[in-house]
Amino acid sequence: MRKIVIGVMGPGDNATKGDRENAYQLGRLIAQADWVLLTGGRNVGVMDAANKGAKAAGGLTVGILPGNNTYGISEAVDIAIATDLGNARNNLNVLSSDVVIACGIGAGTASEIALALKAGKPAILLTEDRIVQDFFTSIARSQLLFATNPPDAIALVRGLITDN
Amino acid sequence: MRKIVIGVMGPGDNATKGDRENAYQLGRLIAQADWVLLTGGRNVGVMDAANKGAKAAGGLTVGILPGNNTYGISEAVDIAIATDLGNARNNLNVLSSDVVIACGIGAGTASEIALALKAGKPAILLTEDRIVQDFFTSIARSQLLFATNPPDAIALVRGLITDN
Amino acid sequence: MRKIVIGVMGPGDNATKGDRENAYQLGRLIAQADWVLLTGGRNVGVMDAANKGAKAAGGLTVGILPGNNTYGISEAVDIAIATDLGNARNNLNVLSSDVVIACGIGAGTASEIALALKAGKPAILLTEDRIVQDFFTSIARSQLLFATNPPDAIALVRGLITDN
Amino acid sequence: MRKIVIGVMGPGDNATKGDRENAYQLGRLIAQADWVLLTGGRNVGVMDAANKGAKAAGGLTVGILPGNNTYGISEAVDIAIATDLGNARNNLNVLSSDVVIACGIGAGTASEIALALKAGKPAILLTEDRIVQDFFTSIARSQLLFATNPPDAIALVRGLITDN
Repeated sequence: MRKIVIGVMGPGDNATKGDRENAYQLGRLIAQADWVLLTGGRNVGVMDAANKGAKAAGGLTVGILPGNNTYGISEAVDIAIATDLGNARNNLNVLSSDVVIACGIGAGTASEIALALKAGKPAILLTEDRIVQDFFTSIARSQLLFATNPPDAIALVRGLITDN
Repeated sequence: MRKIVIGVMGPGDNATKGDRENAYQLGRLIAQADWVLLTGGRNVGVMDAANKGAKAAGGLTVGILPGNNTYGISEAVDIAIATDLGNARNNLNVLSSDVVIACGIGAGTASEIALALKAGKPAILLTEDRIVQDFFTSIARSQLLFATNPPDAIALVRGLITDN
Repeated sequence: MRKIVIGVMGPGDNATKGDRENAYQLGRLIAQADWVLLTGGRNVGVMDAANKGAKAAGGLTVGILPGNNTYGISEAVDIAIATDLGNARNNLNVLSSDVVIACGIGAGTASEIALALKAGKPAILLTEDRIVQDFFTSIARSQLLFATNPPDAIALVRGLITDN
Repeated sequence: MRKIVIGVMGPGDNATKGDRENAYQLGRLIAQADWVLLTGGRNVGVMDAANKGAKAAGGLTVGILPGNNTYGISEAVDIAIATDLGNARNNLNVLSSDVVIACGIGAGTASEIALALKAGKPAILLTEDRIVQDFFTSIARSQLLFATNPPDAIALVRGLITDN
């Protein structure tokens, strides 16, 4: 039977230390909840940290890679999906997640939040940046929630999953 | 020899009257400059208006459709690309345009601006909305310009194309 | 109003001299019929030859490229669609063509014929190779026709377009 | 660390009884070898049977779905990837598998074998149909192997994986 999949999106090379710490904790909490972690699968930034957190807690991890092979994959990814779609794979990240959590911001992450809102997929933004909050609030037509730390984000996920 | 392609992105069903008027004028000016107009190809909102403006000026129009056939296509599209990619086609809209102009805002358009910035593609936002301007300025690592009316946007396109 | 688009698919680097000659003639005849030529857009093999034939007859050409930019594009392509989809773009080649003509065979071309048959898109194989004919006949559930020279292939296209 | 993924491709609605029996046995053997099973994920034909075989042996299953949600998914899929790519998702099936096994034939499966050969991905055809064997042999430039029953196919997989 289909497992619940939680997507964690966020910057790669430009992730801050705080983004990576949050991502690690998100990965750990997702694994502890017995959900599958889905990320963009690369060995940098939020993707890598979230996968490492999930594996530290014995979780299962899926990486949706932009290239046609597993070059540059996080060593903490269990199942690699090689899409060869470049950034078009961002839409798959969103559609394949029961809930999308954005951890930090950048152009790629912004595209994922926007695609989630477009698809009517619940999204949680882990950010205290008012500019980010104001912008996505202004275009949201589906469920958009905000959290300021990983445990709060996971509590929101739990509420969303129970609702559906 | 390859023709210059200018992409006009913007809301479909939720476009405002101002968005549609701007889009029509953009389409007309793009055709007059002898550039090809590229849009998402549907028969609503900014896509439809831009195509109609371009055809009124005798231009050539390309529509990158989300579905696997031409259902719901703007009657002012000359060349239909049926992608069957859903919103992943937004990345093709951006990559296939020499310059991307966003006319109005919504979740789909936001994904296109973000994907343009991610790809290092020059983007022009035709908006006076400070929230939109502030957000994309905060994540831009490539050329992001602002215009307040269609002729100004076209002047910016001209500058960008001459530069390259 | 939407123009009729005829796709010509065939080998790139491994095209035979005969494939390229047929492709050139197909491109010329497609342009003379006032149809748009669609190919995979690269500057090799059947793609390049078909585009050159179409331009020699003053036609309009569209190239659906596998990469995220116009590197390696045929100089005879007018409108470049940069997909960044790799070989997944083969499905767009098929879906965006009113009729698909395969000129020669190889793994990429075989995927395009198969995707055309899967989508119920009319396909014409320009080949005298019995192995190719037998195989695709065995899996066809939609219109699959055979031709032995470019004028015959174009006559078949004309019949298919008039039918629909 | 990345798990080995074996893709089983084959007809959906048009699968024969023999195809489904082979697929079930392939799924079971793949799970027993501790590999992950990857399929197109739908609840029909080879996809459904392979997933059920894998789950009967306690395996882990991934389904790469053509739509934007999990409608029509096999109940034996653990991890659903909702691509919204239609048949373009066939390229992801191939690229994400360490080895591709085709079990039966149809237009979709033919596209997958062709895309595997195009990508240089090892493919095993479980078929005694000479037309199918002759055709793919004629276009193969990478490793293409034939098997007549599931245990033989799995033995070939084992050889391919050890080689690399």
